[in-house]
Amino acid sequence: MASAVNPDLERERKRATFDRETLTNFLYGGAQKKQRRRYLKNAVFSDPEYQAMKSRVFCSREELYALHLQKYSIFRRIQENLNITDQEECFIIRQAIGPNEYYAIGVHGFMFIPTIQKLGTEEQKRKWLPLAENLTIIGTYAQTELGHGTFIRGLETTATYDPKTQEFVLNSPTITSMKYWPANLGKTSNYCVIMAVLNTQGKNHGLHSFMVPLRDLKTHKSLPGVEVGDLGPKFGFNENDNGFLRLHHVRIPRDHMLMRYAKVAEDGAFTVSTNEGSRLTYGTMLFVRAMIVSGTSTVLGMACTVATRYSAVRRQTEVSPGGPEAQIMDYQTQQYKLFPLIATAYAFRFTGHSIFNYYTTINANIEKGNLEDLPQLHALAAGLKAFCTSVAADGVEICRLACGGHGYSHASGLPWMYTKATVECTYEGENTVMFLQTARYLVKCYNQMKMKKSLPSSFAYITDNLSGKSDLDNKLNFDSIIEAYEHRAARLIKAAALNITFWMKAGNKVWDSTNKSSIQMVWAAKASCHLFVVKTFINLVTSANLDPKVRTALTTLCRLYAVNGMIENMGQFSQDGFLNETQINMLNGRLSALLEEVRANAVAFVDAFEYHDNELHSCLGRYDGQVYEALYKYAKSSPLNDTDVHSSFHKYLAPLKKESKL
Amino acid sequence: MASAVNPDLERERKRATFDRETLTNFLYGGAQKKQRRRYLKNAVFSDPEYQAMKSRVFCSREELYALHLQKYSIFRRIQENLNITDQEECFIIRQAIGPNEYYAIGVHGFMFIPTIQKLGTEEQKRKWLPLAENLTIIGTYAQTELGHGTFIRGLETTATYDPKTQEFVLNSPTITSMKYWPANLGKTSNYCVIMAVLNTQGKNHGLHSFMVPLRDLKTHKSLPGVEVGDLGPKFGFNENDNGFLRLHHVRIPRDHMLMRYAKVAEDGAFTVSTNEGSRLTYGTMLFVRAMIVSGTSTVLGMACTVATRYSAVRRQTEVSPGGPEAQIMDYQTQQYKLFPLIATAYAFRFTGHSIFNYYTTINANIEKGNLEDLPQLHALAAGLKAFCTSVAADGVEICRLACGGHGYSHASGLPWMYTKATVECTYEGENTVMFLQTARYLVKCYNQMKMKKSLPSSFAYITDNLSGKSDLDNKLNFDSIIEAYEHRAARLIKAAALNITFWMKAGNKVWDSTNKSSIQMVWAAKASCHLFVVKTFINLVTSANLDPKVRTALTTLCRLYAVNGMIENMGQFSQDGFLNETQINMLNGRLSALLEEVRANAVAFVDAFEYHDNELHSCLGRYDGQVYEALYKYAKSSPLNDTDVHSSFHKYLAPLKKESKL
Repeated sequence: MASAVNPDLERERKRATFDRETLTNFLYGGAQKKQRRRYLKNAVFSDPEYQAMKSRVFCSREELYALHLQKYSIFRRIQENLNITDQEECFIIRQAIGPNEYYAIGVHGFMFIPTIQKLGTEEQKRKWLPLAENLTIIGTYAQTELGHGTFIRGLETTATYDPKTQEFVLNSPTITSMKYWPANLGKTSNYCVIMAVLNTQGKNHGLHSFMVPLRDLKTHKSLPGVEVGDLGPKFGFNENDNGFLRLHHVRIPRDHMLMRYAKVAEDGAFTVSTNEGSRLTYGTMLFVRAMIVSGTSTVLGMACTVATRYSAVRRQTEVSPGGPEAQIMDYQTQQYKLFPLIATAYAFRFTGHSIFNYYTTINANIEKGNLEDLPQLHALAAGLKAFCTSVAADGVEICRLACGGHGYSHASGLPWMYTKATVECTYEGENTVMFLQTARYLVKCYNQMKMKKSLPSSFAYITDNLSGKSDLDNKLNFDSIIEAYEHRAARLIKAAALNITFWMKAGNKVWDSTNKSSIQMVWAAKASCHLFVVKTFINLVTSANLDPKVRTALTTLCRLYAVNGMIENMGQFSQDGFLNETQINMLNGRLSALLEEVRANAVAFVDAFEYHDNELHSCLGRYDGQVYEALYKYAKSSPLNDTDVHSSFHKYLAPLKKESKL
Repeated sequence: MASAVNPDLERERKRATFDRETLTNFLYGGAQKKQRRRYLKNAVFSDPEYQAMKSRVFCSREELYALHLQKYSIFRRIQENLNITDQEECFIIRQAIGPNEYYAIGVHGFMFIPTIQKLGTEEQKRKWLPLAENLTIIGTYAQTELGHGTFIRGLETTATYDPKTQEFVLNSPTITSMKYWPANLGKTSNYCVIMAVLNTQGKNHGLHSFMVPLRDLKTHKSLPGVEVGDLGPKFGFNENDNGFLRLHHVRIPRDHMLMRYAKVAEDGAFTVSTNEGSRLTYGTMLFVRAMIVSGTSTVLGMACTVATRYSAVRRQTEVSPGGPEAQIMDYQTQQYKLFPLIATAYAFRFTGHSIFNYYTTINANIEKGNLEDLPQLHALAAGLKAFCTSVAADGVEICRLACGGHGYSHASGLPWMYTKATVECTYEGENTVMFLQTARYLVKCYNQMKMKKSLPSSFAYITDNLSGKSDLDNKLNFDSIIEAYEHRAARLIKAAALNITFWMKAGNKVWDSTNKSSIQMVWAAKASCHLFVVKTFINLVTSANLDPKVRTALTTLCRLYAVNGMIENMGQFSQDGFLNETQINMLNGRLSALLEEVRANAVAFVDAFEYHDNELHSCLGRYDGQVYEALYKYAKSSPLNDTDVHSSFHKYLAPLKKESKL
């Protein structure tokens, strides 16, 4: 019986208006790729070592770290057994083994090896890449310091060249200069690429990259002068040994500076061949941000899967006296929490694809030396990274709260997802800093527009002419929706630009004038990103090659996304009367109607993402809907229940009792 | 040197425009009470056993649970040594020992003993109260079940009377009927008050309370038929053994039913003396919600303390090339994150006082049998519980994110605060359910107003006449502000009421019509609570007996709270043109100006709360601002650093390496 599907959930699946398998095929690039995906995941889920692993939520921090390494070794074994080399396929396997976890040795593959590839000379590459690839050396990349994050010119670590011994002396001169946060740094890595200020022949030459051995390659003991360790428990990512590193006059040979673009000669003479290096690093950064945008759909989609399935199964409060209790998904307030988030998960998925294609196209131009589109790509990637991660993190929490008390238990899987989703708001470019970078670009575009210069196509909507009114009516025509989002973004960009000008004219310097306008700049950047997402979703449902029933269902979801966004930001859409009171009332009415339309397909929409029970780690989000049996089993396996009477009873509770005669 | 105060922080303290000690005196009811508070806290902080405790973030779940009991035994010892009996003073001591933690044996004191007092006969009280007070029996209160939360008529646990043996048979007939979530249930309690459906003489008599022994009073072993345990790790509150309890035909004597208001005779005959019982339970519920409202100020105030002090100390990005990096508190975006939250922490503090006084007054009437004001109090308490907890939880996260990467570490103390703040959105009345209860009352008031009946004073603003326009100008007159908040609330209440009527007229039943209007009902309830908080804050700064400089500073903070609330909900204030475009632009300008005005006092405002370093548990929020030394110390004490080479290296990492010749 326990393996049967809960009848409420079964009924939900039957009432869908489209074939969810068809949608899954579309999401994963066709039936064949979807099958391949299933095959790879199944290779993980059927692996005996994988199956025998301890549940991560029952692990101590120490066990969690060890589990993390174990997962990596399982990954390597499966990868070798199946002879997988394709990066996307590797990604699927890693995700299946440890979803919403930081990859063990992730920085080794994503940053350490690529940095050697990009910044090393041919000789350096010949020396280190084979060692890195066979894991003789395991490396990480250390840039941020205890006192310095975003502002990299503030970094303090020094690399001083000593021509006598032909060595660099790496040093952390202050407490704030110690490297802090790099992943895999504390216990795992034996090597590190370190960003440090180069001093040679008495001159400071700015930041350069150095290969620094941290631990003995045989014993793994930390080397003399290297003070390295884990930085302690965190909100999440406790499987990872994010670390601190303090260097006490550590000497490395001259050839440990990565010298493809800048060299220090034996005598200490410094030469730069080209500053192409920073451009290459820049490309990596943009790539990572595009990856993060794609990832937001995954974590939000998983949270929606959990909350939606649970909302189909959970019943609460009888509708009429003595009648059955209602599925909580029938409550309008529950629909209002979840359905716009399902729409968002889809919107971000398509946005991820879009920004990624965009990146690929523009990057090809950049590689050819055409840098024209770089600012545009940078503005898009920075803003979308911030927009999508913050919406996704908030969305995961809404899903968790929508599951009531059980959402608070790790049995739901949702707290873990949240700690994963929220960290993305901070790393790889803190979100407020990202929005401001985008906003500065938008203001620049506005000023260009004022000077009658042409704008890149993505930003051609920026205008000074905001006198029009919306023609939006209850048909919710997509052109009218786009027009409304464009109007809002254009108005906020103009307001931010004028505000800066106002403060400049009042005699303030650029920094102060910009700072005094930065709240409005963030609003402008958010509106501009929101517009991009809405346009992308609309473009997909109108132009992609979709099955008709799938198109109809996705079109409704797309309308819900757009309408909900307008209602959530109503002040910005209506401040200048662009939308009038009648239109706002119409939108409120359409919101309710769209929620009812999505209702029939809610479960099918989340099923279509095809997140496996083993990936969700959730008693509430199980495919079979057998929620209560799973919660009971989870409770029984809590390590606190290993003994009936906990040892602390004898130590603390029993002594508190006074004599009695019951 | 490390004990000196960071000069940036010292300068912030000197620039305050008021004497922060004077504000502290006001907050804690005068200089004498403040001194007493300090004395009690110091008794904790100077206690050797307290000082020797392991840091909670380095504990395993098992250790954390034991630590929790240890803290309770420290509390009892200090309480006895100082001979403290006053409940408020006990509260101060407990808070100092374990801030933002669930009290060990909390339910024993808050629910178990009061339930015996309220629902027990004189004989039952004589028997059990002394045993409970000397901790021979340690009890909890079990109502919610695995499948049943808010809707208590859905509870399934049965208590069937067997006249042959004069016993009740307690049983959990299904998996969903097992008790789930009660605090202290899993490992700590040996007794429990259980809410169960009474069956006697073949009839169901609804829910009643039963005293059920769970564990042997000597050995603490669980009793036959009692399947009890911890329910596993959660997002937070892992110090507490929230439990599950499945009863397998457990027999208890007849006199274990709490029989003050309802009795079962020896032959099984059921009689009710009065249904006063539910009214008493109701009073407890309202009291708890008023307590929660007060508590939201504490957790949000602590988070603001951490983020504000850190923002004074942390520097990032040079203002002009080569110049010093700016304190991050000088960034407008940072001010926009933090200062409205400082204002909110103050607003909620005064709201907590207000609702508490309100409760005391109305409760006195209720005790006299005058129930007239009960619905009003219920509507206020339910809505404010939901409003304040959700704003506070979101606010704590904003504080955490405002601290960048370091905010994500448990070293900041902020993740712990968040898991404490967010659970309050769910327990003691799930927030959406609470808002809807308030909204139903508001709609009822609206309909009464339409019938020309008078309304309770708190809701006298409800009106049908919404044709007026705001006269708000840049003086931000308090009457105009209140009028704007009243207009917004009244408009949303009217909209919700008319929406229900619309659906009723279209032929829908009450449940459906209300459900189809519930998004708007929640908006109405939020607006009404927001209005209450704004009015309370304004009333305080205009009417309380305040030092003139403190009054000036708090008045600015109050204006910031009100203006920020209008901007955040601009659509609701401007939809019908009540505020026009010029006024909105004026508000945006005033927001920037108010942030700059608050800037000088930000640190003084959080200092005035006087949360001790030992309570904040935060490297970032230290009074002395020595943030980086503290983070370094935290990192070094991470248990993962107990050994230089972690054992998992040999098990997982080393085997991955291939032979090499470096």
